[in-house]
Amino acid sequence: MAEKKKTNIILFSGDYDKAMAAFIIANGAAAYDHDVTVFATFWGLNAFRKENQVPVKKGFLESMFGRMMPRGADKMGLSKMNFAGIGPKLIKKVIKKHNATPLPELIEMAKEQEVNLVACTMTMDLLGLQKEELIDGLQYAGVATYLTEAEEGQVNLFI
Amino acid sequence: MAEKKKTNIILFSGDYDKAMAAFIIANGAAAYDHDVTVFATFWGLNAFRKENQVPVKKGFLESMFGRMMPRGADKMGLSKMNFAGIGPKLIKKVIKKHNATPLPELIEMAKEQEVNLVACTMTMDLLGLQKEELIDGLQYAGVATYLTEAEEGQVNLFI
Amino acid sequence: MAEKKKTNIILFSGDYDKAMAAFIIANGAAAYDHDVTVFATFWGLNAFRKENQVPVKKGFLESMFGRMMPRGADKMGLSKMNFAGIGPKLIKKVIKKHNATPLPELIEMAKEQEVNLVACTMTMDLLGLQKEELIDGLQYAGVATYLTEAEEGQVNLFI
Repeated sequence: MAEKKKTNIILFSGDYDKAMAAFIIANGAAAYDHDVTVFATFWGLNAFRKENQVPVKKGFLESMFGRMMPRGADKMGLSKMNFAGIGPKLIKKVIKKHNATPLPELIEMAKEQEVNLVACTMTMDLLGLQKEELIDGLQYAGVATYLTEAEEGQVNLFI
Repeated sequence: MAEKKKTNIILFSGDYDKAMAAFIIANGAAAYDHDVTVFATFWGLNAFRKENQVPVKKGFLESMFGRMMPRGADKMGLSKMNFAGIGPKLIKKVIKKHNATPLPELIEMAKEQEVNLVACTMTMDLLGLQKEELIDGLQYAGVATYLTEAEEGQVNLFI
Repeated sequence: MAEKKKTNIILFSGDYDKAMAAFIIANGAAAYDHDVTVFATFWGLNAFRKENQVPVKKGFLESMFGRMMPRGADKMGLSKMNFAGIGPKLIKKVIKKHNATPLPELIEMAKEQEVNLVACTMTMDLLGLQKEELIDGLQYAGVATYLTEAEEGQVNLFI
């Protein structure tokens, strides 16, 4: 039996549009029967935050980061033409109009297709994000795990 | 006969400097006899826009995006030190001074070297860009086509 | 004897957080016994600048770029939540608090692990950066060298 091809995406960016690109590729690769991993690190972790506030104990700096960063995929801004939050609204309108899939649904779809959704524990620690604040169904790992996958990957991207 | 090596670049960014990097790598890889594809998506599509306005019928949102986005490679801003458009002017001056190649010529060169220039149809649809508004010589495809190329690529980059 | 696996990272970004990600991956791959190259181009070159001003002769435009760009890894801003320089201070505080490694030390560590640190000569020329202004222990090369490495790489990333 031939080994499955592997696609490994590092999602570093916390932008709605870049995360959309990441999950469109991830879902496409899963549909092509690749073994797919989205490894979220730094601002990309915000795509995996729960929308509601979760009561966890944090230090002052970590609380501040927590308040300033978007709570979940739907709250993220655009990498271009963000215009203080108007850009994301416009993008969501055209997504709806053209029957494209909004980011939160793309992430749901990735889960259903068994894409490995991994949260980088080192940057969770840095930004003060705790497991309770992130959506269910994630794996938790570090750069070593990423590299083990990536060195066997056909498609490796940093987004 | 050995198969040609493949370089596949996703050009997501609409920044002059990032697009320069993408096309310098693309042209280099083509010179090394790689089979090269630049797959433009989201803001990267602006590098393929015609400079002049093309009369096409659009909805309100799509017209708005059309007006706000740069018309073509030469109009794009910088990812850093853009300074309301002064940065790109400076970069173009140093490009000229040091006999480097400006972005529009890099794209021309890529065409001459038979780099596959692909426009992502899904994001064209989202941003309301129509074929008539884009330069000649493009191919039109979606994420499935990208993945077919990328899974056989030696060098896959997301820029 | 099996060939070493190769990781090739293009560091285009001049952001502290993105450069951190680049060097965390680079150091991880070196620890896994990969042959690792970090190829710094455009704003990424700033990570290799010396902190102190080095007296070199420059044209007017090049001096201007020189003054506007951060002098070295420790002076770089964040890709998100930079807040006029407060963001980097906060990040450095959480790095210290969580015993993570700040960027300048990550670069030192990469040197010690014999990661190839390459400065892109074409963009050095464009931005007016001279060898005397960059840290010791760098190699100097262009896109051709990058491609020779990358076409044999298992993990190729553009950051």
